[in-house]
Amino acid sequence: MELFFSENTDGGLVRLDQEESTHCVRVLRHRVGDEIAVIDGRGTLYRCVLEDADPKGATARIVSGEPGFGSHPYHLTMAVCPTKNIDRFEWFVEKATEIGVDVIAPVIGERSERKVLKTERLERLVRSAAKQSLKGAIPLIAAPVSVREFILSAPSDALKMICYCFDGPKHTIAEVLSGGTGAPPESSGICILIGPEGDFSPQEAELALSRGWVPVTLGKSRLRTETAALVAVTQVYSAF
Amino acid sequence: MELFFSENTDGGLVRLDQEESTHCVRVLRHRVGDEIAVIDGRGTLYRCVLEDADPKGATARIVSGEPGFGSHPYHLTMAVCPTKNIDRFEWFVEKATEIGVDVIAPVIGERSERKVLKTERLERLVRSAAKQSLKGAIPLIAAPVSVREFILSAPSDALKMICYCFDGPKHTIAEVLSGGTGAPPESSGICILIGPEGDFSPQEAELALSRGWVPVTLGKSRLRTETAALVAVTQVYSAF
Repeated sequence: MELFFSENTDGGLVRLDQEESTHCVRVLRHRVGDEIAVIDGRGTLYRCVLEDADPKGATARIVSGEPGFGSHPYHLTMAVCPTKNIDRFEWFVEKATEIGVDVIAPVIGERSERKVLKTERLERLVRSAAKQSLKGAIPLIAAPVSVREFILSAPSDALKMICYCFDGPKHTIAEVLSGGTGAPPESSGICILIGPEGDFSPQEAELALSRGWVPVTLGKSRLRTETAALVAVTQVYSAF
Repeated sequence: MELFFSENTDGGLVRLDQEESTHCVRVLRHRVGDEIAVIDGRGTLYRCVLEDADPKGATARIVSGEPGFGSHPYHLTMAVCPTKNIDRFEWFVEKATEIGVDVIAPVIGERSERKVLKTERLERLVRSAAKQSLKGAIPLIAAPVSVREFILSAPSDALKMICYCFDGPKHTIAEVLSGGTGAPPESSGICILIGPEGDFSPQEAELALSRGWVPVTLGKSRLRTETAALVAVTQVYSAF
C-alpha cells in the first residue's frame, strides 16, 4: 500500500502538495476515480478517491478516516545527542520512526562534538519513514536545545530516564516501565536521554538525577550513541 | 581503548598482519615497549607489550589473557535474507555485532530479490565492529544458503524461531526464551530466521513449522527486513 501525506484535509477534501501530486499522478500514474490512501501526519489515515489529477496540486475526496492508524500504545520522546557523523543520527531517526517514536529531540551536550544540526533533512526522513512503515502519525523533530535546557524543561509527570556510562545503581528500562522503581507507569509519557560519543559531563548527569531522572542501563554491550538510542526505543516498544 | 586483531597468538607472542601493523606503528605511532591490546576473534583479549614495531609485521609479547572478553550469555544465530539494497544489510551486520550476535547466516528465500552475496566486505565489517565495541569474539559470517537448506540443516536442539507476516498463532521472542512455549530455554543455542522484503513463500514457512520452528511476532509495527532482524537481536540481548 502506497501512502501519500497531506496536512490539508479540510471540508472532506485532501489536497496534495506539488511533490506528492507529481508522485501520485506522474510516477504512480493515478487517474481521476482511483482510490488513494493519505495520512495527515497527526495519526489519521484517509481513504480517498482522486477527483483532480493535477500533477501540480491533486485533490481527492475523503471516503473514510481511520484515526490512530499504525499507532503504538505509548508516547515516547527520545532526546539524543546528534553524532559527529550525521549519517548515523539520520539512520537512528529512520529506524526509530519505523519501530515507534513520537518525538525526537536533538540535544547538544557539553561533550558533544556536533554543536549544530539542521532539522530539514530529518523532517523529510521521518515523513518518508512513516509513510513507508504505514503510520498515520509522523514523529515530531524538536528544535535542538542543550542537554541542560532539555533536562530543566522536561515535563515533571513524564517517566524520565537517562543513559550514561558513570558508575552507580541503575535500573533497566523494563523495570522502570513496569513501575518497579516507584516511577508511575501511567505517566503522561516516556522520555529517554542519550548522551554524545564522549558521554554526558558529570554536571549534566548530576542535574538530571537531582531533577528525578532515573539512571538506566541498556545492558553490558558497549554501544555507539545511535545504537544505544535504538536499543532504548526497541526496549520500550517491546515492553508494550 | 584501541583493539588490534590477530589470529596468530602462538608461543606467547602475537603477530599482527600488515594492515594492523601499519595502523599500530604508522597511524597510532606505537613504539617498542608500548602496551597494546589484541583480540584473537575467538573471545580472548590479550594484553601485550610491543617487541618489534615493524610496520609490515609487528610482534608483541603476551602479558595476560582475558577469555570471554565482552561476551554475552547466549549463543545467537541470525539467519537473514540479504536486502536488495546491500547497505541496509551491512548496517544490520554492524549493529548486530555491536549489540551481540554469534553467527550471521545470509539466507536466500524463494522471494528474495537478492540472490547472490559477497561475504568479504561483511567479514571486514564484523571485525571492525567487534574491535570498536570491545568484543573479543568476532561473529561468524556463514556462507549463503537457501532458506530451505538452512531450515533443514539447523541443529535439532537449538531454540528455533521464524518471523513471518502470515496469519496464525505467534509467540513473542521473550515468551519463547522464558520457556513459556515448552521450547527448552537451556538449549544449545538460539536461531532466528528473518525473511526477505517479500516475506517467505508459504512453502518455506510450512517447512519451518513442520520442522518445529516456533512462529514469532516482533510486535505491531511494520518493519523492514534489516530493522526486524535488529529488533530480534535486541529482544534476545534484552532478555538476558
